[in-house]
Amino acid sequence: MRTPQEYLASILNGIAPLAATSLDLAEANGCVLAEDVHAMWALPSFANSAMDGYAVIASDVADASVSHPVALQVIEDIPAGSWPLLEVTSGTAARIMTGAPLPVGADGVVRVEHTDGAMPVVLVHSPSGGHIRSIGEDVQPGEQVLNQGQVLSARTIALAAAVGRSTVLAHPNPRVAVISTGSELVEPGQPLAAGQISDVNGVMLEISLRELGALVIRSSIVDDHADALRQALDDAAQQADLIITTGGVSMGAHDTVKEVLSSLGTVTFERVAMQPGMPQGCGHIGSPPTPIVTLPGNPVSALVSFEAFVRPVIRRLQGREDSKFSSGEVIAGAAFSSPKDKLQFVRARFSSGSALTATPIGAQGSHILGGLAQAECLLVVPAEVELVSVGDTLAFIDLRRESR
Amino acid sequence: MRTPQEYLASILNGIAPLAATSLDLAEANGCVLAEDVHAMWALPSFANSAMDGYAVIASDVADASVSHPVALQVIEDIPAGSWPLLEVTSGTAARIMTGAPLPVGADGVVRVEHTDGAMPVVLVHSPSGGHIRSIGEDVQPGEQVLNQGQVLSARTIALAAAVGRSTVLAHPNPRVAVISTGSELVEPGQPLAAGQISDVNGVMLEISLRELGALVIRSSIVDDHADALRQALDDAAQQADLIITTGGVSMGAHDTVKEVLSSLGTVTFERVAMQPGMPQGCGHIGSPPTPIVTLPGNPVSALVSFEAFVRPVIRRLQGREDSKFSSGEVIAGAAFSSPKDKLQFVRARFSSGSALTATPIGAQGSHILGGLAQAECLLVVPAEVELVSVGDTLAFIDLRRESR
Repeated sequence: MRTPQEYLASILNGIAPLAATSLDLAEANGCVLAEDVHAMWALPSFANSAMDGYAVIASDVADASVSHPVALQVIEDIPAGSWPLLEVTSGTAARIMTGAPLPVGADGVVRVEHTDGAMPVVLVHSPSGGHIRSIGEDVQPGEQVLNQGQVLSARTIALAAAVGRSTVLAHPNPRVAVISTGSELVEPGQPLAAGQISDVNGVMLEISLRELGALVIRSSIVDDHADALRQALDDAAQQADLIITTGGVSMGAHDTVKEVLSSLGTVTFERVAMQPGMPQGCGHIGSPPTPIVTLPGNPVSALVSFEAFVRPVIRRLQGREDSKFSSGEVIAGAAFSSPKDKLQFVRARFSSGSALTATPIGAQGSHILGGLAQAECLLVVPAEVELVSVGDTLAFIDLRRESR
Repeated sequence: MRTPQEYLASILNGIAPLAATSLDLAEANGCVLAEDVHAMWALPSFANSAMDGYAVIASDVADASVSHPVALQVIEDIPAGSWPLLEVTSGTAARIMTGAPLPVGADGVVRVEHTDGAMPVVLVHSPSGGHIRSIGEDVQPGEQVLNQGQVLSARTIALAAAVGRSTVLAHPNPRVAVISTGSELVEPGQPLAAGQISDVNGVMLEISLRELGALVIRSSIVDDHADALRQALDDAAQQADLIITTGGVSMGAHDTVKEVLSSLGTVTFERVAMQPGMPQGCGHIGSPPTPIVTLPGNPVSALVSFEAFVRPVIRRLQGREDSKFSSGEVIAGAAFSSPKDKLQFVRARFSSGSALTATPIGAQGSHILGGLAQAECLLVVPAEVELVSVGDTLAFIDLRRESR
C-alpha cells in the first residue's frame, strides 16, 4: 500500500491549473492572478485636494492668523467630479472639496476649519497646510501594480479597479460536481425506511468545497444502478472541472462505482495506508478528460479523505503553489496510542488558550459523527508511531476554515 | 471627539442580531445556531456491518484458520440499502456490505479478505473480528447533538443532516446594500473624463462583506443629487438589513449624503479620533428602521472604517458574541513615529517566518492604494503613543481573510 503522501503526489500528477480566463473583479477574490497588472493612468490621475477648504496661492496666506486673517476673493466653487475653469491668482481662492481637482495657479489648500467658510470673500485664519495630492504620487502611469501569481484580495482588487481594470486574467475557481452513491441514501430530513440513512456527504462536501472557493454546480444522490450512475457521471463530466464521488469504492460486491468507472476512463482504485479512509480512487473520465476523485462513503472517512486529497487538488486547479498535505505542526496535549502500519488521522481540538496544542477527542471510529462535529483539526500520526507522548510534535490539518 | 472604541460601542448599541429563521443546511455554514438540535433517531439507526464480508455467528468460526477453514451456507446477500429477510443460524452466513443491516441471529462479521468470497458456500479462514456497529453507539435518539449559540461548520451541519434535519433555526447572514456616492465616480474599467475617478469602494466592500458571510444584494454608484440618493436609500432600506455608504460625510459643502440622511431618519455624523477615517456617521432610516453606516469616500479610509466598525456590526447582526475591535496582539517589527491625539491605523505586513511580528509599509496617506494592496494587517496605535519601538506590543486587525 502507498502512503497518503505518495498517493496524493500521484493524484496531483494528473491535475493542472485551470486555464486563466478574464474574471470580473468581484468574482476574482482569492484567485491567482495570471498576468502582471499595469496602471492605465496615474494615481492620483490629477492633482487634487486632500481636504475640504479653499485652494490658494500659499504665499498669499503665509502670515494669516486668527487675529490677522487674510481676505481672498472666491472665484469658483469646485465640487468633486467637476473640473475647474478659472485660474487662481494672487488675492483669489477657489472653494474646493476633498478629491476635487486643484485649479491652475493654486499651490496649497487651507482647510475650511481654518477659515470663516464664507463666500464670495473668505477670511483665512491660518497658512496653507499643503493638503495637495500630486499626480502619480501613489502610482505612475504604466507602473506594474500587481504581479502574476499573486492571490487576489479585496485590497489588491481595489488597486486593480483604481488603475482602470474591470476584469483581470486569473485562474478561475473550479466547478465541482458531487455525487453521493448508495441505494441506502436519502435526502437529509426525509424519514428513513429500514436500512436507509441520510446522505451526509453531499451537504458536508458542498460546504467544504465552497469554503475553498470552489463552485459546486451539482450535488446529487445516485443509487447502486449502473445506468443511473453512468448518466450522472456523463452529465458531471460535461459540466464540471472536477468530480467527487462518495461511496462504492470498498471491497463490496455491489460497488457499482468501481464497475462503472473502470469502463469510463482511466480511474484506478487502491488501498492507501491511512485510517480512516483506506479505499481510494482517482483518474479521469470523459472527453476532454475530467479529473475524478472517489472518496469512501463513511462521512468521517469522506471528510478526512477530502482534506487529505481533494483540498490539495482544488488548490492545484486554482493555480496555487502550495498543495500542502498539512497545515503545519502542533504539540500533542495528551498521550495516546496509535495503530501502526497505517498513517492515522486523529480528530482533535486545540487546547484552550493556545492554537499550538491539540488533544484527541472521543471515539475515533469512521462512523462516529459526534466526535467529528467537535473536531477542530486532524492530527497526522505517522504509520511508524505507536505511542504519542505529551509534548510530541505532530503535523495537523486545520478544519476551522469557517471561523471568520 | 470620541475614540473609535467609544464610537463602535454607540453603533453596536443600535444593532440587534437578525431574527433567527429556518435555513437550509447548505446555506447555514458559519451561522449561529438558534436552537438546540436533538437527534430524531439513533446513530447508527440500525446495527450494521463495518466491513464488506459475511455476517456470521461468531462461535461458528471461533477456530477457523487458513489450514482449517469453516464452511458456511450463504443464505442471503445483503447490500447496503436493503433489509435482511432471513435469520442467520448456526452453519449459515449472509454476505453483507459495509453499512448494510446486520441480519437477525448474526453476532459478528468476517471480512471478505478472510474468506474465499464464494457463494453459495463460503470458506472462512479466520474468526470474526466483530466489525459490528451497534444501534446508537454514536448518538442516542433524542440526544442533544448541537447547542444553541454554536457557529455551524461543515462538520456540525453533517451531524445535523445525519440525525434527520434538512434545515436548522439559525441567525441568517445579513443582506447588505452598498452605495458609493460622488459625482466624480465611474464604474471600474470605464475611461476617465477630467476630474473623474474609478469607484473602488463598491467592489472592495462587496468582497470584504462576502468574506464575512454577508450577502451583498446591491452595489451602486449615486451622484451628488439629492433625489437620486434619496431613491437609492429608499430602495436599499426596503431590501437590506444594513446599508453602507461611502463618501459625502466630510466637511464639504456639497456633501449630499449628510443633507439627505439627516432628513430620512436618525443618522448622526461626527468626527472620530482616528486616522485615517475621521468623518463617520451611523443611525437608522426607513420604517421599519434599517441600520446604516456611512463611511468616508477615500478607499483607504473606507477600508479602515469598514474593519473598525462594519465588521463588528456584521458579526452582531449574525448573532456572534465577539464583536471585537481587534484581532489580537502583535509585536512591532520596526520603530515608527505616530501622530498623537488620534488613534492611528497603520498598514503593515507580518514579518516573514512569524505571524506575531508586523512592520509598517510605505506611505500611509489615506489615498495611497499601493500600500493598502500590500497590507496584511492594520496596527492599532493608541492616540497617546507618539513613538513605537521595536518589540512593543500593539493590537492589530488581520486583513488576511482571503488566505484560504
